[in-house]
Amino acid sequence: MKVKVARIYITEGKHLHERVFERLHNDHKVMGVTIYRGVSGFGRSGELHSSTLLDLGFDLPMIVEFFDSEEKVQNALDAINDLVPPGHVLTFDADFS
Amino acid sequence: MKVKVARIYITEGKHLHERVFERLHNDHKVMGVTIYRGVSGFGRSGELHSSTLLDLGFDLPMIVEFFDSEEKVQNALDAINDLVPPGHVLTFDADFS
Amino acid sequence: MKVKVARIYITEGKHLHERVFERLHNDHKVMGVTIYRGVSGFGRSGELHSSTLLDLGFDLPMIVEFFDSEEKVQNALDAINDLVPPGHVLTFDADFS
Repeated sequence: MKVKVARIYITEGKHLHERVFERLHNDHKVMGVTIYRGVSGFGRSGELHSSTLLDLGFDLPMIVEFFDSEEKVQNALDAINDLVPPGHVLTFDADFS
Repeated sequence: MKVKVARIYITEGKHLHERVFERLHNDHKVMGVTIYRGVSGFGRSGELHSSTLLDLGFDLPMIVEFFDSEEKVQNALDAINDLVPPGHVLTFDADFS
Repeated sequence: MKVKVARIYITEGKHLHERVFERLHNDHKVMGVTIYRGVSGFGRSGELHSSTLLDLGFDLPMIVEFFDSEEKVQNALDAINDLVPPGHVLTFDADFS
């Protein structure tokens, strides 16, 4: 089936990924969710997030990836926009089998 | 060149990723294979796979990603369908250079 | 907005990912860069890169992912082609919001 894949780019510090994950899992029951930890990253702010600073409790990138029908993905993204500010989501088309 | 990217979502417990990896590497010689470990995930069953349970030997998500021509990717997926049950594969188009 | 996503597949040993990351961050100021570490991989050479050999200082896969407008991504890839040899980059289209 045709699916939409969403990748949400957040950081570890605020435990946002856990709250996003819980909502996707409990409320939206999307087809699949995987969380990845990056080793370095930066976003629009240009601020670095790097594991070389891990000992300082630095804020590593966390990527919450999920997929489902386009409609369910859009509904889920709309429902978590209080947790995820604009400018943090990539979406693309894929086939699921 | 145009390629097809496949992402296979399995878990660590059964060492399936190693068997999938070996076949892709030895038998199918696809252009590139990378395995990623996720920190949390769930699939269709809704069952959680989380690193917070790592000390209990819990079953973390493993993603086997590979790419090649559409035909080679389809042949490889057909050939590993005894290892990977239906409903675990995303595919999408990309350019390789 | 429409964006191009680029994924550069290199290995950890030569610290190339750090140099690529610095240029993308400092010189090109692309919209987002994330580095992932794989647990196993192989590329065209067929040579394995696996964390089971980590104690030997083996060379793990590092994936530098970034995105921006198609033009900025192409310019950035052109500018790092002294660091990244041909045959190491996937690109695909996505929407950023």
